[in-house]
Amino acid sequence: MLDQRTASDLTIEDMRAAHERIKPYIHRTPVLTSSFLNDLTGAQLFFKCENFQKAGAFKVRGASNAVFGLSEEMARKGVATHSSGNHALSLSYAAGRRGIPCNVVMPRTAPQAKKDAVRGYGGIITECEPSTSSREEVFARVEAETGAEFVHPYNDLRVIAGQATCSAELLEQTDGLDAVIAPIGGGGMVSGTCLTLSNLAPHVEIYAAEPEQADDAYRSFKAGHIIADDAPDTVADGLKVPLKENTWHFVSHHVTDILTASEQEIIDAMKLTWKRMKIVIEASCAVPLATILKNPEVFAGKRVGVIITGGNVDLDTLPWIK
Amino acid sequence: MLDQRTASDLTIEDMRAAHERIKPYIHRTPVLTSSFLNDLTGAQLFFKCENFQKAGAFKVRGASNAVFGLSEEMARKGVATHSSGNHALSLSYAAGRRGIPCNVVMPRTAPQAKKDAVRGYGGIITECEPSTSSREEVFARVEAETGAEFVHPYNDLRVIAGQATCSAELLEQTDGLDAVIAPIGGGGMVSGTCLTLSNLAPHVEIYAAEPEQADDAYRSFKAGHIIADDAPDTVADGLKVPLKENTWHFVSHHVTDILTASEQEIIDAMKLTWKRMKIVIEASCAVPLATILKNPEVFAGKRVGVIITGGNVDLDTLPWIK
Repeated sequence: MLDQRTASDLTIEDMRAAHERIKPYIHRTPVLTSSFLNDLTGAQLFFKCENFQKAGAFKVRGASNAVFGLSEEMARKGVATHSSGNHALSLSYAAGRRGIPCNVVMPRTAPQAKKDAVRGYGGIITECEPSTSSREEVFARVEAETGAEFVHPYNDLRVIAGQATCSAELLEQTDGLDAVIAPIGGGGMVSGTCLTLSNLAPHVEIYAAEPEQADDAYRSFKAGHIIADDAPDTVADGLKVPLKENTWHFVSHHVTDILTASEQEIIDAMKLTWKRMKIVIEASCAVPLATILKNPEVFAGKRVGVIITGGNVDLDTLPWIK
Repeated sequence: MLDQRTASDLTIEDMRAAHERIKPYIHRTPVLTSSFLNDLTGAQLFFKCENFQKAGAFKVRGASNAVFGLSEEMARKGVATHSSGNHALSLSYAAGRRGIPCNVVMPRTAPQAKKDAVRGYGGIITECEPSTSSREEVFARVEAETGAEFVHPYNDLRVIAGQATCSAELLEQTDGLDAVIAPIGGGGMVSGTCLTLSNLAPHVEIYAAEPEQADDAYRSFKAGHIIADDAPDTVADGLKVPLKENTWHFVSHHVTDILTASEQEIIDAMKLTWKRMKIVIEASCAVPLATILKNPEVFAGKRVGVIITGGNVDLDTLPWIK
């Protein structure tokens, strides 16, 4: 079974199997370019637009791989998770497509737009306090009551194999890349990117981008072991969670570097993307562009894939409008 | 010369010549779909995303056709126009690509984002008061001083032939349509759509969508002659201008119907598009979706092309955030 293996057992065949499994349920999202942003950065940027993905985020890839990989018997009891948002949406969407229940434990402070969307996809929300202890306590109760299969937002090999399909598409859609950059929270997308690129395009550099105010991955990477923050606060609300053993495996083995950006730099990059590219992206996915603008010497002259991870924004409270 | 002909002389060959002429300077914009909006409307909607166009709007098609169709001698003195916004951007962009000057007379009340963008593309702005008389007076002075070629935002056959290229692409990108709907202000996009569809796909219905608060085209269509409003006020600020003789020709001969929507319906459709499709669109391009949601019986079961005309929004003042 996939979930009895460890991160180092994952192979490119797991990614390929995931891609076949989830293709009916996901979009092959477009890659957009911006001559304005190319001029501004001195790099050639290829934006993989997972904000256009089903359920509004790349997380539907991993969630669908987990849901559709379950045996009939396991599927009957449904799936369950805790999530700050997009994984909850995505697991609800995937469970809905399979016709099985999805229980979600969510902090009561999560954006209303995300709660509404989880319910819109048929997810059943149980609220917890915004602390690790409350979340674990409430989740244990939900899991015991339902017998549902736990699908962790990122520390799950099925999820990592699913996220890995994103950069496989990006490679097919671009004519050669020198680097790929993705935001890092728990590290699911970055781990999937590592799985795919280390196998299919090992010369491509892999950068992770993180908010300064939630820089546990940055500090872990420099220290050589996982350092978890207690309760980081950042506008990039999808990136508050810490690395876990499976994602740390990929980050520590395959990531070229981790770059950070301040809150204002993230907000400026988010607004710039909306303004010039005309796409709605979350603050989390603006972190890569913010770090590219901050470190032009790292990316100048390179062909860089930039993973836009999601577009689920509460349009009533934009960070640049006070 | 094209500009000595009248609207009834325009042929599909003018559209084809325009497409060849402008291809190096424009994007072939993507067509996006939304299963959520299909479910909501009961129609199959195909959104032609000119918000991703160069300079952020379809108007670059007509402007580029005018600019690159000029003789060397005419081009030397540059081009000039008056515009509420996107035509000014587009003409500045096209003139910049040809390396000739572009003079723009713009109301001082135009959105700051549009003024900044005109200057960003190299356009030279002369401000006027937000009235027809001031605009005409200031423009006459600019034209006399520069000798520049006047390119009207829409009542210009070169411009109409350029806008016509948009629905030619839309036809190629979709596998058969029953209807196309576009917003109507002065009628440049609708006229181009009529030119193309009446020649290449005469069975396709053509709808124009207009704000109730600037419904001069609607009233003209019902009356059978042009009725111009004096100073309409609407959130759809690209749609305040009246029809002129060349656009009236196409509207009166080829449009199936004109539908209208209230300010609140337009704002709701705009926000819904941002939220579900993750694209930044102007209020003006939300008018078609607003009228589709308001008149489901007209569109149910049909394959409908929806022209998203532009994405140049002042992100600091969104109409749903007070």
